[in-house]
Amino acid sequence: MQNGSEAGRPLRLALIGIGKIARDQHIPALNADPSFELVATVSRSGGIEGLPSFTDIRDLVASDLEVDAVSLATPPQGRHTLASIALEAGYHVMLEKPPTATVGEVAELATRARAKGLSLFATWHSREAASVGAARDWLAGRTLRSARIEWKEDIRVWHPGQEWILEAGGLGVFDPGINALSIATAILPDPLLIQSAHLAFPANRQAPIAASLSFRSGRARVEATFDFLHTGTQSWDIVLETDAGRLVLSDGGQRLTTDTTEISHGANEEYPRLYTRFASLVRKGASDVDLTPLQLVADAFLIGERSEVAPFSF
Amino acid sequence: MQNGSEAGRPLRLALIGIGKIARDQHIPALNADPSFELVATVSRSGGIEGLPSFTDIRDLVASDLEVDAVSLATPPQGRHTLASIALEAGYHVMLEKPPTATVGEVAELATRARAKGLSLFATWHSREAASVGAARDWLAGRTLRSARIEWKEDIRVWHPGQEWILEAGGLGVFDPGINALSIATAILPDPLLIQSAHLAFPANRQAPIAASLSFRSGRARVEATFDFLHTGTQSWDIVLETDAGRLVLSDGGQRLTTDTTEISHGANEEYPRLYTRFASLVRKGASDVDLTPLQLVADAFLIGERSEVAPFSF
Repeated sequence: MQNGSEAGRPLRLALIGIGKIARDQHIPALNADPSFELVATVSRSGGIEGLPSFTDIRDLVASDLEVDAVSLATPPQGRHTLASIALEAGYHVMLEKPPTATVGEVAELATRARAKGLSLFATWHSREAASVGAARDWLAGRTLRSARIEWKEDIRVWHPGQEWILEAGGLGVFDPGINALSIATAILPDPLLIQSAHLAFPANRQAPIAASLSFRSGRARVEATFDFLHTGTQSWDIVLETDAGRLVLSDGGQRLTTDTTEISHGANEEYPRLYTRFASLVRKGASDVDLTPLQLVADAFLIGERSEVAPFSF
Repeated sequence: MQNGSEAGRPLRLALIGIGKIARDQHIPALNADPSFELVATVSRSGGIEGLPSFTDIRDLVASDLEVDAVSLATPPQGRHTLASIALEAGYHVMLEKPPTATVGEVAELATRARAKGLSLFATWHSREAASVGAARDWLAGRTLRSARIEWKEDIRVWHPGQEWILEAGGLGVFDPGINALSIATAILPDPLLIQSAHLAFPANRQAPIAASLSFRSGRARVEATFDFLHTGTQSWDIVLETDAGRLVLSDGGQRLTTDTTEISHGANEEYPRLYTRFASLVRKGASDVDLTPLQLVADAFLIGERSEVAPFSF
């Protein structure tokens, strides 16, 4: 049963992890996409009315429900185990970002999916923002001189009560910051190499709440500021200085402007585009697993200087 | 000139970084190996009597000295820049462990070497210890149930005054510990995946002085203890419990025993074997770049819990 979709039939998908991101993004995207039929949920915190719901993926596998694919929207720390069980059961797997808690885990899942002939899609939703493709195309013909990434948001607004984000392995401010890195690695013509990092850990937490990072990309310096305690105007912006002037990719990749002109602007269609891409990967029998953004974060932790800052509570 | 060796002629090699590891290991190995001719040194802290010495690799490149290859024995933090200059100059490159400060850097060097048709060898000297191959062969026919890695040494004895080891990016206790990981990843049949880590940072340092790590490899749990403040009997041991009894790989991979029998024991020929392998790679036009050990360390930093311990001074 679980070996992929026949042509024309929707993929029967179980959504694992019914938290904020599932309700805000995954469920609306799935409901609007004729390529998918949402057939079940797996979650410890409730399901969707009218759908079979399980509290353990093992119960889904043991049930007689026919499932082609799962999409994992749980916190990253437990995702390798869930994805391993799913692949073992013959399900195609889509992973929220970051794909797993470690680079080694997602690399191992990629090997396992290949061996089983299943599709694995490690998603980076910000790469699907409306103006990311336009930014890559604009940069392709120019020389980058320098870039500044400003990713500043209020954790209390965007991640209320999500304690796991500040636990060991939860990435802290890199949970949003990795979105910026997923965009930067998609649009810059040269690899992004981290040179130095400073990570600020709240005294009562195991993940950083702010970070400043210096990279090189070809001959250009790229500086990034990630701040999880930013109130007031939130910023998810990348400012690129080139031989042809300044390019600003703002609103998390939705809008692209020069100093004088708006080049591109679009609504947020990130999750619908991710699911379109997942359906296409399954149809082609392909996988898409780019480790680079998580690799950059691991490298930042590896070489980063640490400092302790005030305790944080939600 | 710099495009590899003609058959029979020794490779003209410049050794970059004349510190403790160069004098203890690289120079004796090179002097004993007819495949190499040591033609120059690059170091800020003195050279070798009778050989041209440079303080900057750019001066070596600008000189009229004919060089086929360089071997980098400098601290890892600056190695990506040196290796980039060397590859640009058309030199084959051998890197001490860890190859670079970050995983991203060594991955980028591998791409660059491939594009230039040059050999890049990211060495893991402990993999060349006398009994590592015997341990891998013995394990291949058995089922691993669990393993314990004990890597405990006195930093003051083995790294006297090497302040860079405890700076950000210097790896701290993972500088020796990565040797254990390079062996474990070479002998275990299944990938080593880190599950949790605890890292102890001296209050006055940016790199950990001790670590405890939990891994999975297939169904087996692997526990590791790394300690840089261990006085008395030093230990570089891996104890493997299998369905066919206990196997102990000790003395940093030199000796292999079961509870009753010595299976293998040999003298330390790690660096001579590394240079033999480098010469062979250059002759074949091949590279050998395994990121796995450094990847595991980066993943340990990424998910590790941190604690602060007493300040450390040499």
